This record gives sequence, C-alpha cells and structure tokens, in this order.
Amino acid sequence: MKKNLIIVFTGVIMLLSTINAMAQVNGLQQAENMVIKKGMIKVTILYPGGEGKKFDMDYYTKKHFPLLKTLFGDALKATAIDKGIAGGAPGAPVPFVAVGYLYFDTLADFQNGMKTNGAKIRADVPNYTDIQPVIQISEVLQ
Amino acid sequence: MKKNLIIVFTGVIMLLSTINAMAQVNGLQQAENMVIKKGMIKVTILYPGGEGKKFDMDYYTKKHFPLLKTLFGDALKATAIDKGIAGGAPGAPVPFVAVGYLYFDTLADFQNGMKTNGAKIRADVPNYTDIQPVIQISEVLQ
Repeated sequence: MKKNLIIVFTGVIMLLSTINAMAQVNGLQQAENMVIKKGMIKVTILYPGGEGKKFDMDYYTKKHFPLLKTLFGDALKATAIDKGIAGGAPGAPVPFVAVGYLYFDTLADFQNGMKTNGAKIRADVPNYTDIQPVIQISEVLQ
Repeated sequence: MKKNLIIVFTGVIMLLSTINAMAQVNGLQQAENMVIKKGMIKVTILYPGGEGKKFDMDYYTKKHFPLLKTLFGDALKATAIDKGIAGGAPGAPVPFVAVGYLYFDTLADFQNGMKTNGAKIRADVPNYTDIQPVIQISEVLQ
C-alpha cells in the first residue's frame, strides 16, 4: 500500500518535472526571439515633423507595418515604432513625429526585399503621410 | 531494498524538478529584462554626419555609455547603439554616423537623472565628438 503511494507520488513528480522542463525551453526560446542581435542591420525610417504635415499613426501601426511584415516575410526579424513626443531642450519641437525600425540579418535581405516589394511599399505611404522620410541604414553595435 | 530504491529515485526526480523550476524562473526573468515595453520613454541621440566631423565610436561604446549607466543607475532600463552605414537611396550619404538610445519607464525618470547628472554627461561629450546631436524623446508604441 505504502509502496503504491510512493509509485504514484513518483509519477506525479515526474509529470511536474516534464511540465517544468517544457515551460523552461519555451521561455528561453521566447527570450531568444526577442534578442536584437549585435551585427544585425537596422533600417530606420524617420518622419520629420513640420507645420501642416499629416501623419496617421493608427494607419502606420495597424496597416502599414503589418503590410511590411507580410511583404518582407521571414527576412524581417523584428520591428519597432516610436511616437515622437518632445525634443531634447525644454519646449523644443519634436524632431520626428514617428520613427519606424526594421531589423534584418543582412543588408542583402533588406535590399532583396525592396527589389521585390519596394513599389508596393511606396504605394502605401500616401495612405498615412505626406512627409518625405529620412532613411538610415545602421549596424546594431549594442 | 526495492522500496529504498524508489525513495532514492523520488528524491532525484524532486531535485531535478526543483532545478528545472529555478531555471525556468531565471529564464523568464531574463526574458522580461530584455523586453522593451510598450509605453516606455525612449531618448534617442542622433549624431548627423558631415565633412570633417569626428566621432570616436570606441569611446562612445566603451566609455560614454558605461558612464551613462553608472550615472542614471536603475532608472535606465535598457540601452542600444547603432552605427550608421548608409542612406536609403543607393549612394546616398548616411544621415547619422551614430545613434544612441536610452530607455526609461517614465519621462520624469530621465528628467530627474538629467537634473542631477546633465553637467557630467555634457562634459564627457567632447571626448568622443564635435557633432551637435539631435535629441528626440519618444514613446515606444511597438
């Protein structure tokens, strides 16, 4: 009787152990997915502010970025969007109303994606802004 | 004899289970630390390129950013550094030779840190550049 109890107890502990191990692997995989790795290519699209300029942040976040993700596919490793709120000095105007970031493993991944999809991407821009963006290609150092 | 074996086996499984649980918690904490959360304040410091301008990336990454981390302390939640490599159009000059990012939970965390440490931070700038940076304060949307 006591022996049976121990066997059941062992079974429960083994099950818990397995669940823990699975959760751990899952947690670490999530962590790895989130890492912006040193050496990655970061394409930054900066939208300078200005009198009478329009920028539809709702469209940018909900329509344009999902479109970019669909078009670039797996080559696009991560994205980010900032909303400009202020300049550095007190009362200074905000330099950029919005900044978008696209992360790729290599510059070729971005360039090949643009060759295929550049026209479609550019065609969507008037749907959210009349600002001519500044485009910066960077390497992630840290 | 068989019963003792089962008890030892149960002990080993319990130990493994505990180790797994500890590793799991650690993994998830690491994941959380890496997350740049929606709503965070992101201070972006952009260094425009230009003929004859100097920028010592080695000093910036190895001395200036560690200084910022020391001065802002726990309020500084994450940092990043980009090295500019190209503009958007083929052959276009790179808009910014370097871009630094500082993440805070609130705008007040950054402002209070600058009140205390602004003079020390500004005094270190001539050690790596003669470029007047563009400073942008943003809210992380995605």
